[in-house]
Amino acid sequence: MAEKSRIGVTGLAVMGANLARNMARRGFGVAVHNRTTAKMTEFIEDYGDEGAFTGAETLQEFVDALETPRKVVVMVKAGKPVDAVIEEIAPLLDPDDIIIDAGNSHFPDTDRRTAYCAERGLRFMGIGVSGGEEGALNGPSIMPGGDPAAYAEVEEILSAIAADVDGTPCCTHVGPGGAGHYVKMVHNGIEYADIQLIAEAYDLLSHVAGLSAPEIGKIFEQWNTGDLESFLIEITGIVLGKTDERTGRPLVDVIVDQAEQKGTGRWTAIDALDLGVPLTGITEAVFARTLSALRDERRAASTTLAGPTPGAGENTDRLVEDIRQALYASKVVAYAQGFAQMRAASQVNGWDLDLGAMARIWRGGCIIRAQFLNRITEAYEQHPDLDNLLMVPYFTEAVGGAQEAWRRVVVTATEQGVAVPAFSSSLSYYDGYRRERGPANLVQGLRDYFGAHTYHRVDADGAFHTRWSQDGSEVAAD
Amino acid sequence: MAEKSRIGVTGLAVMGANLARNMARRGFGVAVHNRTTAKMTEFIEDYGDEGAFTGAETLQEFVDALETPRKVVVMVKAGKPVDAVIEEIAPLLDPDDIIIDAGNSHFPDTDRRTAYCAERGLRFMGIGVSGGEEGALNGPSIMPGGDPAAYAEVEEILSAIAADVDGTPCCTHVGPGGAGHYVKMVHNGIEYADIQLIAEAYDLLSHVAGLSAPEIGKIFEQWNTGDLESFLIEITGIVLGKTDERTGRPLVDVIVDQAEQKGTGRWTAIDALDLGVPLTGITEAVFARTLSALRDERRAASTTLAGPTPGAGENTDRLVEDIRQALYASKVVAYAQGFAQMRAASQVNGWDLDLGAMARIWRGGCIIRAQFLNRITEAYEQHPDLDNLLMVPYFTEAVGGAQEAWRRVVVTATEQGVAVPAFSSSLSYYDGYRRERGPANLVQGLRDYFGAHTYHRVDADGAFHTRWSQDGSEVAAD
Repeated sequence: MAEKSRIGVTGLAVMGANLARNMARRGFGVAVHNRTTAKMTEFIEDYGDEGAFTGAETLQEFVDALETPRKVVVMVKAGKPVDAVIEEIAPLLDPDDIIIDAGNSHFPDTDRRTAYCAERGLRFMGIGVSGGEEGALNGPSIMPGGDPAAYAEVEEILSAIAADVDGTPCCTHVGPGGAGHYVKMVHNGIEYADIQLIAEAYDLLSHVAGLSAPEIGKIFEQWNTGDLESFLIEITGIVLGKTDERTGRPLVDVIVDQAEQKGTGRWTAIDALDLGVPLTGITEAVFARTLSALRDERRAASTTLAGPTPGAGENTDRLVEDIRQALYASKVVAYAQGFAQMRAASQVNGWDLDLGAMARIWRGGCIIRAQFLNRITEAYEQHPDLDNLLMVPYFTEAVGGAQEAWRRVVVTATEQGVAVPAFSSSLSYYDGYRRERGPANLVQGLRDYFGAHTYHRVDADGAFHTRWSQDGSEVAAD
Repeated sequence: MAEKSRIGVTGLAVMGANLARNMARRGFGVAVHNRTTAKMTEFIEDYGDEGAFTGAETLQEFVDALETPRKVVVMVKAGKPVDAVIEEIAPLLDPDDIIIDAGNSHFPDTDRRTAYCAERGLRFMGIGVSGGEEGALNGPSIMPGGDPAAYAEVEEILSAIAADVDGTPCCTHVGPGGAGHYVKMVHNGIEYADIQLIAEAYDLLSHVAGLSAPEIGKIFEQWNTGDLESFLIEITGIVLGKTDERTGRPLVDVIVDQAEQKGTGRWTAIDALDLGVPLTGITEAVFARTLSALRDERRAASTTLAGPTPGAGENTDRLVEDIRQALYASKVVAYAQGFAQMRAASQVNGWDLDLGAMARIWRGGCIIRAQFLNRITEAYEQHPDLDNLLMVPYFTEAVGGAQEAWRRVVVTATEQGVAVPAFSSSLSYYDGYRRERGPANLVQGLRDYFGAHTYHRVDADGAFHTRWSQDGSEVAAD
């Protein structure tokens, strides 16, 4: 009888196939299974020589091929398919076997599945995997959530297949239950903000500075050598520099301006609203995609709604540098907001997230990988209870040094009629956050007037209500 | 035996008590009940002479006191208490009796309760009631949802107790199921945006123009005679003009700048994210409240994070007029977004909402009541299938005429470091909406690079993928 496999993967679409190949290439025996058997046999034909694979035609064969406690990676479409696989495989497993959902599941589902498996004596892990197809094959960023003892069983494998930055794997135990998928969700939300900021910079360089796509691509290429260095800035340079084969024009100029989304940005924004954490950058990025989808409406509005009279030309060199600084400052705000959200979720759920470690495992493998994340790791190492990233000297100075340029960019965009929802909402957040006293006193006064919702006083404890429609006197609230 | 009552109210906290008194004053016999009987007897003692009340000590007595089909208004705290009352009273009712939830329930709960009652042969209505305690007593805006035949049974009573504007009651059948509570939710969301815009105007008049609260109150008083005329602008003048009894200072100056919320604004923003409708004004208003809550963090940040060097003084008269126009234009955008959201929800749920009628029933009784709503009613009467309110000539011209002033205000706020998230996000939406071609082409190019998510071309049908990491050629997607 063949040697048992260390781990199994069921679901051999490209992400599952690439994870299985990654494991096998690192020397782990991998049992592979797919609901449609043809996909499994095709996989073995194509990649069978890359490592020690065992192809299983049925779930029972698959389970029998694994050493115990079994480690079963489920890589199917998020949602009902995950539940279907779990329900089918759970009766075939033994106590303490581990089911690992490596897809893009919503974290409340992961909490629910953890409980479902626990009732059956099984262990469940929800792990976030970022890096797309190529990351899955060559080294993704991995965000494993679930029981620490279960993680200990798979740590060797996950650490081996993860991306490596300076000798450290981009993989660490995140926290219990849905914590891994939660952190992956916020990662994706931050990715939305990063991309929207890049799109706004491109829009200004194109419409205000009047530069062509390849010219803007060169600027991003140069930006990638400084503070902004990151995978997304790098590929922006490549994408903007790409010539369309059919027309000879820049490829981006023939791509339709409607952005699509798969839902994780929306989940992040909704979660922030639920938690009561101001998350303006990511949320505006999500709304910008939904606005881009209204292409027919925009076309009609473009000839109907008035814009500004075009102003005088700008000094392009200064504008380019200003935009670079605005992009960096807005990016810092988006990360500060996303990390504040993770902190709030950690407190609410008792996850005890190590936020510095989250930044560390995002340095390689994933879409938002960047040098910049080292600064976040350092910030949390020095101040584990930090309320907001903007408050550590490195970021305070970075944003403080950029804020004049950032304001000039928002001013120029506003005067020229170019929408910059993420630049300007991030700046509004910054200006709101650094206000000792904001205008919400009036909000409370109005709420007390029309709804008797009461207010607090700066000079006394307790809640108060003014009898606005009666004698106008103030009374202590019940 | 006493004459049966036309309608019953269970739950005699202030909203329920006031609704019951309103009905009785209009000549309808009202049976009243409260879980704690003392509250009912107290109610009868205090208000028994206002009309034909029948006090019921038990739910059975309450049900027996009603003519059939019975009409039972439930006015208890939203959430589980509503379910508890329904479960307790349903077995006591006869087929075709009508349970009416007049509280601030979340619309999916209303859909669920409608189904629960239908299974038991009962009819259920979820009705939105706006106007606070005073509205409930003297004439609220009423947004009834549910079965039209059930509405026909209560129309006479609801129309009689609703606010009246120019001889038309602020009450009309909204749609089936949760439609009434949905429209009430969006009403509250718009209220959040209106209030946030007022707060931003106040903040600029205070911090940039250097005016005192009573001086700003006078400006709002004057604004209330023009396009901005509305309940909220009116009471802003009153609240800003109020002197604190204890200190002799303006009351708002001693109110703590932390805004609270009860959740309906958050629901509205979450629903917009679910529907994929860009709803930036309301969402930024919700986030502004959550940011205001971080008072300790803001205090620490105020001495750490750098702001702009204060600029030269502004011409106050021009600034005041610019702010008035910015407030009006941003308000139009907030309503345009809220109505686009209701339109999307109506399509998704098959509610067939008459959006012009929604504006009509908001003209009186509710918190956002305003003359301005007549223009919205007219817009939908002329164009029932309107995509966006900005596209009717009245609003196109209003916003087009205000946009230069609006831009000056956002520029001034940006330069002076005053956060204006609702002003600026509304302007970004306006500028994004009137762009025939925005920068989302780059977003799609990036998504195709890192995730093979494909893109569409302006010159060909179908989806395409560039083999970025292979030979760079373009292929048609599966």
